[in-house]
Amino acid sequence: MTITGRTRLMAIVGDPVAPLRSPALFNQAFARLGMDVAFIAFEVSAGELPAAWAGLTRLRNLDGLVITMPHKEAVIPLLDALGPTARRTGTVNTVRRRPEGGWEGEMFDGEGFREGLERAGHAVRGAAILQVGCGAAGRAIAHALARAGAARLVLHDASPGRAAALAQALSETYPGISAAEGAVDSAGHDIILNATPLGLREGDPLPFDTSRLRPPQVVADVIPHPEVTPLIAAARAAGCATVTGRSMHEGQARLAAAYLGIAGWEG
Amino acid sequence: MTITGRTRLMAIVGDPVAPLRSPALFNQAFARLGMDVAFIAFEVSAGELPAAWAGLTRLRNLDGLVITMPHKEAVIPLLDALGPTARRTGTVNTVRRRPEGGWEGEMFDGEGFREGLERAGHAVRGAAILQVGCGAAGRAIAHALARAGAARLVLHDASPGRAAALAQALSETYPGISAAEGAVDSAGHDIILNATPLGLREGDPLPFDTSRLRPPQVVADVIPHPEVTPLIAAARAAGCATVTGRSMHEGQARLAAAYLGIAGWEG
Repeated sequence: MTITGRTRLMAIVGDPVAPLRSPALFNQAFARLGMDVAFIAFEVSAGELPAAWAGLTRLRNLDGLVITMPHKEAVIPLLDALGPTARRTGTVNTVRRRPEGGWEGEMFDGEGFREGLERAGHAVRGAAILQVGCGAAGRAIAHALARAGAARLVLHDASPGRAAALAQALSETYPGISAAEGAVDSAGHDIILNATPLGLREGDPLPFDTSRLRPPQVVADVIPHPEVTPLIAAARAAGCATVTGRSMHEGQARLAAAYLGIAGWEG
Repeated sequence: MTITGRTRLMAIVGDPVAPLRSPALFNQAFARLGMDVAFIAFEVSAGELPAAWAGLTRLRNLDGLVITMPHKEAVIPLLDALGPTARRTGTVNTVRRRPEGGWEGEMFDGEGFREGLERAGHAVRGAAILQVGCGAAGRAIAHALARAGAARLVLHDASPGRAAALAQALSETYPGISAAEGAVDSAGHDIILNATPLGLREGDPLPFDTSRLRPPQVVADVIPHPEVTPLIAAARAAGCATVTGRSMHEGQARLAAAYLGIAGWEG
């Protein structure tokens, strides 16, 4: 790619940015599509987002942003409008300029994850699911799974109250679902998913005990890098099908790209 | 070039950014030097710089900025330290992080212009020079020419008082020089230079009457794009040697790159 003064900008805002795959993914798409846009990473510390935001939104050649950890909730009060999933989950991962001025955001992590599961051949409708981790990404995923017709969601989070609050929100929003806080026991679930950051750093403990995993249970992980986390490796060793954070990330990027007006993402 | 989450950033801040050549020039150098750095343009309107600055300086993976119109003076109060030429001219075109925190700036437009003239074989030492335009770029150029030993500088600017103020500053700083406000008459000068924006836009009038240009007079222009401005074309038609804004820009970029710690710029 060749960057000139005419090149438009899109960027991902997060911390740390070194492991992020969005720049490579988006720039490959721009090259394939012949779009004169560069996708870069902006490394912004937690707590610095409001000041950074005031500056970034004054860059007239910046057309869109992907928002990642630790800013997915912090960006909400800075926006002028929110899409339905952003409102439901209190999180945003994609932001674009509004034609009438200002910026609007929407959340695609959950739908991206669901797409990743379904494209890999694992039905969400009617499934019994154990989800460990109810932070920003976890909330978005649980909403997407519930919206897609999951029968049962057992939720767990190390922070007290988080899982219960999410279970209550799901029960209120999707009347058909059974959603409740529960123990981290993989037995009896069709799909078990990690939505905690465990696995991102070398030496992290497993997010749950993998000794009772058995096929045809499906194990999914939100961590995109390394693609094969210790959890994914253990699940594969147990003979289970797996869905990695990479496919969630690709699903999310596809939906974010559509929101950002990038036509023809999948070639 | 391939941009990933690990790619460091440098940028040029200006308005408009579409005609700027710095992104291509710096990115070519980064590719040649094998540096994982992307050089992008940030389009920021006049008056928006303080808010944009507060945000840009919070991008932890941004290592340096080139500052261009209309921000070369406005950036001064936002910086934590100034180099000697920035202090003398009240203008900055390059900004870098300080190891101890904060940002410092220096001005290379003038020295870049002088280098462009001298590399083209035109001696500044002892020369009689007519300079039209005493804005930010013009001030920096006049200081560089005076510092390099120009014998006489006749200055003109359409804004009342500007040329006289610059002449006075030059006379105080470089005791050997003859510097004064004067008429725009090309006769009797070794070097005649345009430091106004005239020539940037199609249909602009010439910055001065070119009918009396004669070799071996040298005509120089600060406008980098188009490279052959109507002034440069008229000077060439009169048989005069010319130095275009492109060579000034390349000189400036070379000095800015050294200030930004980019070793090996000229291959």
